[in-house]
Amino acid sequence: MWNRLVKPVTMAGRVATVPAVRSNPAWAFPRFYAVKATRSSSFQSVTPAIMKQFAAVLSTPKTSLLSTIPSEDNEWNVVDKSELDVFNSDWMGKYIGGSACVVRPKSTEEVAKIMRICYDNNIAVVPQGGNTGLVGGSVPVHDEVIINLSALNKIREFDATAGTLVCDAGCILESLDEYVAKEGYMMPLDLGAKGSCHIGGNVATNAGGLRFLRYGSLHGSVLGLEVVLPNGEILPGLETLRKDNTGLDLKQLFIGSEGTLGIITGVSIATPRRPSATNVALFGVESFDAVQKAFQMVRKACGEILSAFEFVDQESYNIVQTCSTRNLRDPFEQRYPMYVLIETSGSNKDHDDEKLQALLEHLLESEVIVDGVVAQDETQIKAFWALREAVPEALAHHGRVYKYDISMPISKMYELVENLRHRMVEKGLMPALNTPGRVKSVCGYGHVGDGNLHINISAELYEPAVEDAIEPYIYEWVQGVRGSISAEHGLGVMKAEKIGYSKDRLAVDYMKKIKALFDPKGLLNPYKALPSE
Amino acid sequence: MWNRLVKPVTMAGRVATVPAVRSNPAWAFPRFYAVKATRSSSFQSVTPAIMKQFAAVLSTPKTSLLSTIPSEDNEWNVVDKSELDVFNSDWMGKYIGGSACVVRPKSTEEVAKIMRICYDNNIAVVPQGGNTGLVGGSVPVHDEVIINLSALNKIREFDATAGTLVCDAGCILESLDEYVAKEGYMMPLDLGAKGSCHIGGNVATNAGGLRFLRYGSLHGSVLGLEVVLPNGEILPGLETLRKDNTGLDLKQLFIGSEGTLGIITGVSIATPRRPSATNVALFGVESFDAVQKAFQMVRKACGEILSAFEFVDQESYNIVQTCSTRNLRDPFEQRYPMYVLIETSGSNKDHDDEKLQALLEHLLESEVIVDGVVAQDETQIKAFWALREAVPEALAHHGRVYKYDISMPISKMYELVENLRHRMVEKGLMPALNTPGRVKSVCGYGHVGDGNLHINISAELYEPAVEDAIEPYIYEWVQGVRGSISAEHGLGVMKAEKIGYSKDRLAVDYMKKIKALFDPKGLLNPYKALPSE
Repeated sequence: MWNRLVKPVTMAGRVATVPAVRSNPAWAFPRFYAVKATRSSSFQSVTPAIMKQFAAVLSTPKTSLLSTIPSEDNEWNVVDKSELDVFNSDWMGKYIGGSACVVRPKSTEEVAKIMRICYDNNIAVVPQGGNTGLVGGSVPVHDEVIINLSALNKIREFDATAGTLVCDAGCILESLDEYVAKEGYMMPLDLGAKGSCHIGGNVATNAGGLRFLRYGSLHGSVLGLEVVLPNGEILPGLETLRKDNTGLDLKQLFIGSEGTLGIITGVSIATPRRPSATNVALFGVESFDAVQKAFQMVRKACGEILSAFEFVDQESYNIVQTCSTRNLRDPFEQRYPMYVLIETSGSNKDHDDEKLQALLEHLLESEVIVDGVVAQDETQIKAFWALREAVPEALAHHGRVYKYDISMPISKMYELVENLRHRMVEKGLMPALNTPGRVKSVCGYGHVGDGNLHINISAELYEPAVEDAIEPYIYEWVQGVRGSISAEHGLGVMKAEKIGYSKDRLAVDYMKKIKALFDPKGLLNPYKALPSE
Repeated sequence: MWNRLVKPVTMAGRVATVPAVRSNPAWAFPRFYAVKATRSSSFQSVTPAIMKQFAAVLSTPKTSLLSTIPSEDNEWNVVDKSELDVFNSDWMGKYIGGSACVVRPKSTEEVAKIMRICYDNNIAVVPQGGNTGLVGGSVPVHDEVIINLSALNKIREFDATAGTLVCDAGCILESLDEYVAKEGYMMPLDLGAKGSCHIGGNVATNAGGLRFLRYGSLHGSVLGLEVVLPNGEILPGLETLRKDNTGLDLKQLFIGSEGTLGIITGVSIATPRRPSATNVALFGVESFDAVQKAFQMVRKACGEILSAFEFVDQESYNIVQTCSTRNLRDPFEQRYPMYVLIETSGSNKDHDDEKLQALLEHLLESEVIVDGVVAQDETQIKAFWALREAVPEALAHHGRVYKYDISMPISKMYELVENLRHRMVEKGLMPALNTPGRVKSVCGYGHVGDGNLHINISAELYEPAVEDAIEPYIYEWVQGVRGSISAEHGLGVMKAEKIGYSKDRLAVDYMKKIKALFDPKGLLNPYKALPSE
């Protein structure tokens, strides 16, 4: 049975882990790092009168409406400011807003009514799912009303013949995966935050993750969306058809729009069949060139069963061994410059074993890899995956982390990591290559199969000198190889103004026109995803 | 070696087959069937002065510019009206426009300059690719200038490591497939018209076809587009990145927009690895219920190698046997109510053979299928595929064909075919079930795996009584099961006004707003894809 349902350490059980994260100084980003976007003067703040309007359209305002604004008639849940922290800040504590009001509607109609009140009163809104993003897209920048979708969490229908799921936007990805598993299906995406993230947020941010190599983009697997528009109109569209060429495909616009065009309230999605056999192997490799060679050979040898091809460099691997709280055993007797994890998923275990065995022999004989281990059982499968998935968590214990998520031609991927290491030495932030200084490490890991590299730089402190050494250098470098400055995380508030590194001016102009078409008052998720000027 | 490169009879070699089609009365649609959309009075007609402007911006106007408009200074290729027929009418001879001018630009810049002249002078334009569509989307309705992309046919780059192809929009799908095959890749789509259709047209119409089940929608595999906008601006975007979440994904809007928002001039697309082993099997099945059961069992037994699951009903099969010019042998000793063709594509022939053999035994033992044959060599693979692919061609020789392309929940698919047959009897168009009258046959076939049904009704004549018996009944029926009235063919001019059967009013309103945003003068492919009011 397919059973790699590893609960990631870093993000699973968000509510429980937030206090722990907060008390860990390595996670505490100073306010300096908060975004400096000026509050738009065209937005109104929420008043007691508006709160009364909100309360009037909610079926259970005493539980659905939280605010620091006092209620004369006890109409909503009046809370201390600190009780809104979990909604006002992201899981890293990096982006912190100051909203006085959180609404948790219980139906699409409630979302629409709340949105309509905001529209009529020029009140800015941030839609919020599981709040597991990395670019500050799901928390307010100033005092935007938070419409949190967590109470919109019902599965609406599942067609077990076609494998099509229709559900509320607030359903948690892992719960959906467990639900469809009972019928032999799986969600077409998987990511570290699966235990907390919402499917609506996944779609709004066009989440990538670990199954992208095999099952592709959400632009291909999302079949329909129900969306509340900024003026409170409900755009229906929860079709379950795999093929439908009738007019413009509007839903595509909302996929990856980061909550700037509408609030996704329902999702219809195609789920692939759950493979019955899974194998995981870990390779020790001498260079990134060899990683690329291995990728070609692996794709050729087990093309249709390949479901992941991930890489971790030695620096990341060392930090996992020394800093992860998970006590992860190194299955190798020595350290290698690069590690590759591959996963296969198929319908016949014997066939897959045979393919993998032949591949491994071929890789070793041709000296493309220097060492390799195949997981013998589910415990080992989980243990190997943990070595890859623990990188962000281990880094968080190693120092203050600057995170970048980029894509580019595979051949260029590791060059940037090496260039950044040299740059840290040149800038005097590290005394010598791979020698910790104010910058402690420059790590590269990610999804080779998708050309998607995560560069994480850990440092002693958050300080402008480090950020200045990285930016805009990293963005310019990525632009130089026609890469993307945000492969799968989105732009959010972190990179809204950086879009020009990856997108043409004319394209950005049309994005803004489309934004204005759907949201003429610019109320929905302001300061994010699109540049201000 | 993968080698099912069957040249379809119906559409391949378009230029060569058009005269033959024209001389066959079964193909000759009377003018009655032409679209009645009134010419918009806001459009200007092309004048000699405009022709001079066109000529001035083309590098080779004597070959790139064809017109019936006389040229005083011999600036362009002046032709007889009949020489424009091949551009003015579709391959079926069903949709016939009256353009006086065809431009075949040789570069994106030329497309942009021509478009700019049209924009400045309020001249309507129809972009034209291989002109293999089925809904009249690629021919003028009145006197629109035809911008034919066939001279824009260069491969721009192919990255053999990543499998990403960048090419001009006018490249022919089959040529691209042959090109990438040399490096071990394949195009992610395949359709009957592959020998004539352009990749730009495929993208503009979001073509589905035979590989959809395995490789999914173009919304997932297209990585970037270069588009000339109605005002002549060039929107660049030929990124080759598999992941890129920087702002709104504008390219998605053009996929399936049927040439109404911009003219696609370049395409960047991800190509999957070409499988090294292919198997094809044909089953005789007793009912559509059994077809569905077979689909579940096949997906379970060979999920990751399944690349097609097609069905053909007995009526279609009989017509192939009697009317196809291809002399296709029936591999079975008797006729069955339903036929299923499955194809597997994998990396290990022994493994795939074993899976298929076990599946076949299981299907026969459980009596889900009553007969089954597996192709033993490439000749048989082609022969089995021909039995499925010959349906449209055979039908064209059987009578005048009313074609519908719909999608819906799989369980409902065949009910509609049966209902239509009964309806033809009720309406007195057939004397009894399966007994040819004025209506000769009601055939169902298509892509079961995608819920995509092709219903073809052949009749003695084209006559309003037959059309009235089919429409709007068929559209209302599809609407009743939340299906799509155009699964993969698009709306074109045939179904532009029918969009309401599949799309909500508010959605259509937003489609029109987006159309107005990109094309405020409504010059690009007017009368098509979107309703007039």
